[in-house]
Amino acid sequence: MTDPGHPAILANNDIFGYEIRVSRGILSPDNLSLLHGGPVPGRRFVIVDGGLSERLIDGLTDYFAAHSMETRILTLPGGEACKRLEVSGDIVEQLEHFALDRRNEPVVIIGGGAVLDVGAFAASIYRRGVPYIRVPTTLLGFVDAAVGVKTAVNHLGLKNLIGTFYEPTLVLLDQTLLRGLPTRQVRSGLGEVMKIAVGCDPVLFEMLEAQDISNATRWVSSTSAMQVIVRTVESMLRQLQGNLRESELTRLVDLGHTFSPAFENDPVAPMLHGEAVALDLVITATIARNRNLMPATDLVRLLKLMRGLGLPIELPTLDPEAVWRSVKERTRHRGGRQRLPLPRKIGHCVFVDDLTPDELRSALIALSPGSHF
Amino acid sequence: MTDPGHPAILANNDIFGYEIRVSRGILSPDNLSLLHGGPVPGRRFVIVDGGLSERLIDGLTDYFAAHSMETRILTLPGGEACKRLEVSGDIVEQLEHFALDRRNEPVVIIGGGAVLDVGAFAASIYRRGVPYIRVPTTLLGFVDAAVGVKTAVNHLGLKNLIGTFYEPTLVLLDQTLLRGLPTRQVRSGLGEVMKIAVGCDPVLFEMLEAQDISNATRWVSSTSAMQVIVRTVESMLRQLQGNLRESELTRLVDLGHTFSPAFENDPVAPMLHGEAVALDLVITATIARNRNLMPATDLVRLLKLMRGLGLPIELPTLDPEAVWRSVKERTRHRGGRQRLPLPRKIGHCVFVDDLTPDELRSALIALSPGSHF
Repeated sequence: MTDPGHPAILANNDIFGYEIRVSRGILSPDNLSLLHGGPVPGRRFVIVDGGLSERLIDGLTDYFAAHSMETRILTLPGGEACKRLEVSGDIVEQLEHFALDRRNEPVVIIGGGAVLDVGAFAASIYRRGVPYIRVPTTLLGFVDAAVGVKTAVNHLGLKNLIGTFYEPTLVLLDQTLLRGLPTRQVRSGLGEVMKIAVGCDPVLFEMLEAQDISNATRWVSSTSAMQVIVRTVESMLRQLQGNLRESELTRLVDLGHTFSPAFENDPVAPMLHGEAVALDLVITATIARNRNLMPATDLVRLLKLMRGLGLPIELPTLDPEAVWRSVKERTRHRGGRQRLPLPRKIGHCVFVDDLTPDELRSALIALSPGSHF
Repeated sequence: MTDPGHPAILANNDIFGYEIRVSRGILSPDNLSLLHGGPVPGRRFVIVDGGLSERLIDGLTDYFAAHSMETRILTLPGGEACKRLEVSGDIVEQLEHFALDRRNEPVVIIGGGAVLDVGAFAASIYRRGVPYIRVPTTLLGFVDAAVGVKTAVNHLGLKNLIGTFYEPTLVLLDQTLLRGLPTRQVRSGLGEVMKIAVGCDPVLFEMLEAQDISNATRWVSSTSAMQVIVRTVESMLRQLQGNLRESELTRLVDLGHTFSPAFENDPVAPMLHGEAVALDLVITATIARNRNLMPATDLVRLLKLMRGLGLPIELPTLDPEAVWRSVKERTRHRGGRQRLPLPRKIGHCVFVDDLTPDELRSALIALSPGSHF
């Protein structure tokens, strides 16, 4: 069932407490991955992203029917709007009406990052936690939301203010689910891939430089895309290992996540998460360059790759104050220190605590439309 | 600072991941327990049960002022009504406005079981978990809510349907906080003490038989009451050890918790938690006696002690159907098996899965008003 070109298991229970499995065609009846963790025949509660194609939702229904499973499919509207505390209460209500078994009927959650986040949060608080399976359907989901143990909802207009650390039973990465993913969604996912490449994986950076992503939708279904995905997840897991619950707040995976909330929350033109991360990477690299930390050649290489991937490298018109507010909020989230990762070259970072509003403003000016390198 | 008659530490970080500390007079300025886990001087967010005396709330304010601490005190109305998902969202909002540090400003939660439950739940989901200190102020809190790692809110009219397993940083047991506790509250706490005694601690049962609890409010402040409390917590901890997150669903501490939800949720005369647990114990023991499992002498001894403690041993007028519904709900919560603990003598239980509605009805008839042994 698994793609012969890739390892079947990227994370296992011994080290991570859960398994990340690469599997092709999880909706084909002879693939048993989706039935993991409970009796067959039996019952499953399935949370589905309303943004998914009808074909896929029909495929899910047929799959479970083929295994004589009693299924209840709950469709959530995708996107950030569904990440609310009340929605998690509604999901709990549905789980209770389904009379879910606490231990032997894993909730199957299939969709984009937002649906994975709120679905997993609901699973983590219903009767103090029931097992669940994460099935991402976006590139961002493959390389970010699906990998760790974080669950989340937004609150008070702040992203992921509420959540838990709660392991899934299983994560399933099925590249066939990415078929037809819109260009913008592919690029957003590539923003998170870039974060890993710039932060800690120079080989991944070279792999990205070798990709032809002129047709993003076609690319995401290619063999080389899957190689990029697997490499990214493996590097991400190395970063998370031993720190899944963030007992250490100085984290390399925070690269690209200091200024980005301001762009995601922009009231006029909110960016997708990965787009905002990409733009944050450009700001961060500019700061690193201005400090003479990162060589100019590396910055040029970074900007060239960003452009090649179709990622934003120019700032939208925005309030520099909002970006600084984001720095302050993240500083608080990181226990009162900025812990800002700055690349000293591609694939290697240092952490600093001394970014000033003036220094940030200088970097932002360098990135305003037209003034680019 | 600690009561010389009792061990200072009942649970420690090595085994439980948190500490349960017996300490007398935690509001006296030379007792530093409440400042545990964060810098001094510094800041603390304090969640207080609105049912506490004004003297106690003033004492808290004075205590933190004496240590030059910046404090925000949030008062919650006590009782089950505050255990709601929306209230946990409100608490998160207050924590965010306070700009709580994620790792170094433990939330201090002081109050009855309901306030401890919802406050701890909020602490467990705010930014995926911040440290907190539990300070119970009722006997029930001392021997139940404060001991384990459970947090909870009610949902859809079901008790604790939503919650997390989330360790406190510290639990503080200060007997001086029990001063003036109303008789009915003391008795409710004794219901949980009885559960431990009947379930697994015959020595505790004998200790209870030796108590004079004719004046419950005076008793709860006595040295022998503290001995009972410490013994109960120690026995409870032995039961929880290795199973804090309920990976094993067959649990002796479920004794008294199968029929009791029906009495707590009774629409006409809802009982306090410990009262309902006590009545459940009487039903359970009657079933055990009817099966010829428990000797008649032990049942007589149990009923005599119950009476002596002022605990209910006669059923209120109620719908037997409601009691059976509770059995079914608990069976579901226990993974589809009843896992009903039945005492075969004082301090020793077996588990059964084969209780029938008829068998339950027979036991209930034996306990209806007037028909008592």
